[in-house]
Amino acid sequence: MSMNDKAADQIPDIADIFSARQRICEEIRTTPVICDPRLNADLSCELWLKCENLQHTGAFKFRGASNAIALLDESGRHGDVATHSSGNHGAALALAATTHHRRAWVVMPENSVKTKVEAVRRNGGEIVFCAPNQQAREEGLAALVAESCIPIPPYDDARIISGQGTAVIEMSEQIPGLDVVLAPIGGGGLISGSAIAARALIPDVRVIGAEPEGAADTALSLKQGKRVEQFPVDTIADGLRAIVGVLNFEIIRDNVDKVITVSETGIIEAMALVWQRFRMLIEPSSATVIAAILASPEDFSGQRVGVIISGGNVDLDHLPFKT
Amino acid sequence: MSMNDKAADQIPDIADIFSARQRICEEIRTTPVICDPRLNADLSCELWLKCENLQHTGAFKFRGASNAIALLDESGRHGDVATHSSGNHGAALALAATTHHRRAWVVMPENSVKTKVEAVRRNGGEIVFCAPNQQAREEGLAALVAESCIPIPPYDDARIISGQGTAVIEMSEQIPGLDVVLAPIGGGGLISGSAIAARALIPDVRVIGAEPEGAADTALSLKQGKRVEQFPVDTIADGLRAIVGVLNFEIIRDNVDKVITVSETGIIEAMALVWQRFRMLIEPSSATVIAAILASPEDFSGQRVGVIISGGNVDLDHLPFKT
Repeated sequence: MSMNDKAADQIPDIADIFSARQRICEEIRTTPVICDPRLNADLSCELWLKCENLQHTGAFKFRGASNAIALLDESGRHGDVATHSSGNHGAALALAATTHHRRAWVVMPENSVKTKVEAVRRNGGEIVFCAPNQQAREEGLAALVAESCIPIPPYDDARIISGQGTAVIEMSEQIPGLDVVLAPIGGGGLISGSAIAARALIPDVRVIGAEPEGAADTALSLKQGKRVEQFPVDTIADGLRAIVGVLNFEIIRDNVDKVITVSETGIIEAMALVWQRFRMLIEPSSATVIAAILASPEDFSGQRVGVIISGGNVDLDHLPFKT
Repeated sequence: MSMNDKAADQIPDIADIFSARQRICEEIRTTPVICDPRLNADLSCELWLKCENLQHTGAFKFRGASNAIALLDESGRHGDVATHSSGNHGAALALAATTHHRRAWVVMPENSVKTKVEAVRRNGGEIVFCAPNQQAREEGLAALVAESCIPIPPYDDARIISGQGTAVIEMSEQIPGLDVVLAPIGGGGLISGSAIAARALIPDVRVIGAEPEGAADTALSLKQGKRVEQFPVDTIADGLRAIVGVLNFEIIRDNVDKVITVSETGIIEAMALVWQRFRMLIEPSSATVIAAILASPEDFSGQRVGVIISGGNVDLDHLPFKT
């Protein structure tokens, strides 16, 4: 087992995130931050959107996947990589792998949405379909690992967390004097990397997570002081349906000031607001951070707030607006 | 009557467009151009999107409106301005006017879509509702002009055409060696300004217009050699429902190489393609240029094509995707 494999199950620090940035800076996009004065007036805060929806493959996931693949290269581990994913991690891993002349195998539930299947293929990934349940996904991945594929988990992994944290390094340079960093919570890769980076780089910052009420396993875990392993998930935010990871929960518990839960109607309203005000396509998972501000305006009044817009991959055949 | 009013009914030249750019450059956004290598491979051409959907008020219309208002300032004409509009010109004029400490009155059909009514109000415009027909709109505007408002037409006006043409000055600087400039045709303000600028600035460029089959009055006018004044309009591209203007038709006839008409399903497919590949919200009118490439790939094969994405103001309550 190489040093890099060992590191995968340890909590990364800011040095790891800076290393990740050095490693991936020529492959990822430094995404823009945008701000709208009229929306700020409506919200009574200074809101900055960090546009990871404009990242390669349309989501922050490409940061972590690129870091993991580059670390494999550095450690001299050759071979195909594999993961299971119904969404953005699969496409991100596919692009990161093919860029580095590896094949990526993605175990996908056979009921995955068409646009996400297409995204994996477009980025050069090989798909293995499985039954739509957790056990089949894990068995599919285990079979690939048995054939010598190297597994790359979507969030509960130090290489992935470090990669995701690079978004907040950029944000801290792009926007001086942030009072709040706000990110969505699914498996917890983005929020945990963001929290480590924000704590280290931004004086007196508050780090806040946003989570759908229908996938509020992290809020519940924090309340109970112990990571829950099951939660009856029901939310439109398809990127946030995972249970928070083990490493991720530890990092969140120690570094995140607050988790705000948001309703489904709040998510849909926030998504419409961003589409209309910024003409940018964001996915429901990304809208949770805006929904959190709309739900708790007093928490953000007069503050400079940086939110991470996590992705823009929407299934146009299943939009939540009436037609 | 000032010199600037006289100029309003004359065909502008490249000097007018450069003057417009000087006049408005601090108010407008120099919008980005974006390109996606994987989409280029699929389309067999090098496609560049000029993102006027990211312009202030979400459409190129702010260029022409800013130029018209700045010219009024220069000529010393004080007072409120007025127009009739069911869409982007109203919001653009509202923002341009309020920025210059004028009031803008916008006559809007009482059945206008909510998001566009809100956009006019958000940008400081005063709305006068009228019955949803051309006569009521013109009567509403005439009543405002009788009360000393200065009318600012949406497209059939040299100040507006010159302003819109500034997008192509930017594009010619941002993308060297364009083979084709492609823009949608509604009233013709954008295509005519674009054609004048492209002819003057880009050697051997082809200028192509895209028009919905359900609003193909310009294609019909060109075929008949005479501007048609009526056309049974039926298209989802709400920004392109106007009949081409008098000045605009002359400019198009003399400077546009070809008009490609596109189907409604072609528009919807092209809109979905841009949303998915670029995570940018574009409106149906903007999708016509992509639909034109998909409909006539042989016209663009191996070429460097600059398309103007005219706007991003979509009514989320009336999306053309199945849900």
